[in-house]
Amino acid sequence: MPKTIKIFSPATVANVACGFDVLGFALNSPGDEISMALNGSGSVELRDETPYRLPLSPEKNVTAVALQSMLNALQSKQGFTITFLSKIMPGSGIGSSAASAAAGVFGANELLGCPFTRRQLVEFAMQGERAASGTAHADNVAPALMGGFTLVRSYAPLDVIPIPSPPIFAAVVHPQIEVRTSDSRKILRHEVPIKKAVEQWGNLAGLVAGLFTGDYDLIGRSLHDVIVEPVRALLIPEFYAIKQAALDAGALGCSISGSGPSIFTLSRSEATAQKVALAMRYGFDRVGIENHAFVSSVNKEGVRVVE
Amino acid sequence: MPKTIKIFSPATVANVACGFDVLGFALNSPGDEISMALNGSGSVELRDETPYRLPLSPEKNVTAVALQSMLNALQSKQGFTITFLSKIMPGSGIGSSAASAAAGVFGANELLGCPFTRRQLVEFAMQGERAASGTAHADNVAPALMGGFTLVRSYAPLDVIPIPSPPIFAAVVHPQIEVRTSDSRKILRHEVPIKKAVEQWGNLAGLVAGLFTGDYDLIGRSLHDVIVEPVRALLIPEFYAIKQAALDAGALGCSISGSGPSIFTLSRSEATAQKVALAMRYGFDRVGIENHAFVSSVNKEGVRVVE
Repeated sequence: MPKTIKIFSPATVANVACGFDVLGFALNSPGDEISMALNGSGSVELRDETPYRLPLSPEKNVTAVALQSMLNALQSKQGFTITFLSKIMPGSGIGSSAASAAAGVFGANELLGCPFTRRQLVEFAMQGERAASGTAHADNVAPALMGGFTLVRSYAPLDVIPIPSPPIFAAVVHPQIEVRTSDSRKILRHEVPIKKAVEQWGNLAGLVAGLFTGDYDLIGRSLHDVIVEPVRALLIPEFYAIKQAALDAGALGCSISGSGPSIFTLSRSEATAQKVALAMRYGFDRVGIENHAFVSSVNKEGVRVVE
Repeated sequence: MPKTIKIFSPATVANVACGFDVLGFALNSPGDEISMALNGSGSVELRDETPYRLPLSPEKNVTAVALQSMLNALQSKQGFTITFLSKIMPGSGIGSSAASAAAGVFGANELLGCPFTRRQLVEFAMQGERAASGTAHADNVAPALMGGFTLVRSYAPLDVIPIPSPPIFAAVVHPQIEVRTSDSRKILRHEVPIKKAVEQWGNLAGLVAGLFTGDYDLIGRSLHDVIVEPVRALLIPEFYAIKQAALDAGALGCSISGSGPSIFTLSRSEATAQKVALAMRYGFDRVGIENHAFVSSVNKEGVRVVE
C-alpha cells in the first residue's frame, strides 16, 4: 500500500488593498484538504469528495495542471492518486484555485523527496492559475505556498519576497454572489492616472513599512486602494456600507479580497476581527444576501502536511 | 550681538528609481551652508555670498518663503538675518531648492527654541518648493529635514515615514546641461498603463523590503523605473550609455535623480561608488559634456547645526 499524505492548503487574500497583483497573505482557515499518494499507473487519477463537482479532466483540473507542469520540469512519468476531501468554495475570491494548485505541487514535492523549494513551486502552481482564470498570476499561490505576506516583485523573472508581519487578524465575509475572476479583470481600465498610481504606490510602500515595523496605525493608514476597488466595488452590492461598518467596528482597513466578491479586513486583535465579521455579516443579512464569514490569524507556514 | 548659528542642509535624491514623487534620501555632501541669526527688525534680511545670484526678494527666495510659512503658523513677527554661504548648484536635480527651504525652517526652529519637530517642518519647507517649482512636493524636503530614506506615503494629510537602510553609498554625476523641474514635469504622461504601474509598485515594495532587511541584491533588483525614466531620459544626452557604464562598474542600480539632469547610483561600498562615479564622468567626458560627480554615504541625520 503506497504512502498516502493529507495536505492542508490555505485560503489567501490577494491584492491587500494597495498591492494589486503583487501582494497577498495566507489564512489559517478555511483551506483545501486533499489526500495524495504515488501510484504505479503513470497517470494522475482524480477523485472528488467535495460538494463542488470539480472538473476532473487532467487539462481542466487546476491541481492536475499545476502538478503536470512540475512533473514536466522533472521529466517524470510518475503517477499520483489525488482525492479532493474539502474545498474552499470556488469563486469566493479567497484563492480557491490557488489553494488547489498549491496543494497538488506541494504534495507531489513531498512524495518525491522535495526536489524543489516552496519558492520554486510557485512557478508550477501559477500554471494552475492560468488554467483557472487565463492568467498565471502568483499573488495567491505565493502566500499559499510560502505562508505569511508575500510580495511578487516581478514576474519575469519571478521574484517572490516574504514580508514579515506583526500578529494580525483577518475577517473575511463572502456574499453568495457570483463574480468571475476573468470578468473582474475585464472591467479594469488599461490606463490609470499617474496621480492615482503615485497614491497607490505610496500606500503600498507604507503598508510594507508598517508590516516590517509592526506599526498598526501605519498599516491602517496604508490600506487604501484608489485604483481597483472603485471599479470592482460596482460588482459587489452594499460594498461601501459594509466597508464602513467594518471600519466602525475597529478594522484597520477593508477592501475587496482578490477579484471579489469576498471582502477582507485586517484587525489588531482576534476579538476585534470577530466584531468586524459580525458587522459585515449584518450588512449583507439586512439586505437578504446570503453570506458566511471567517476570522483567522495570518498563516505563517503556508500549505502543509497534516497527516 | 545676537546668537548666530551655521546650518548644513544636505543634497537629496528624490524618486530613487521606482519611488516617483514618494521616496527620497539625503546625502552627506554636497549641501547648502547658511548662517542665521534673530534680528530686531521684524523682517527677514537675506545676504548672498554664493556665486549663484540667488533671488533675494522675500516672495521669490525659497528659504524666505519656507521660513515665512513657518512664522505665519507661529503668528510670529520675528525677524531673521540669513546669509547664504555656499549652495548646491541650482537646477542640478539633487534638491537644491529643498536644501534651501530645509535650512531656513530648521535654523529658525533652532533659534526659536524648537517649537516644531523635524517632521512638522516638512510642511513649511514644502512651501519653499512650491515657490521654486510650482509644486509643493515633499520628496526632497522630507529627507533633507529627517535624514536617511523617507517615504511620503500621503500628502493629504502629509504622512512621512522614515525607512531604515543598511550602509549604502551614492554616486551622483551632474552634467552641466539645463533641465528645469517644471519642464521635466510637463513632459510626463498623465495616464500610465496599469501593467507598468504594477511593475513600478512591485519594485517600490521590493526596494522598501530590501532597505529594511539590508538585502543589497533585492535593492539592486528593485531599482527600476519603468514609468518616468523612459520619458525623462530623453532630456539627458548619453543617459543609457552612462547607466550601463555605472552598472558595469558595480552599481546596484542607476536612474535619474529627481527631475534630472543628475544621474544617481547606489552601491554597496564606497570603493565601488568611487569607481561608478569615474565611469559615469568618463561617459560625459568622452562626448565633451562638462560634469562633476559626488560620492557620499546616506546622511542619516538630515539638516544640522554645524557651529
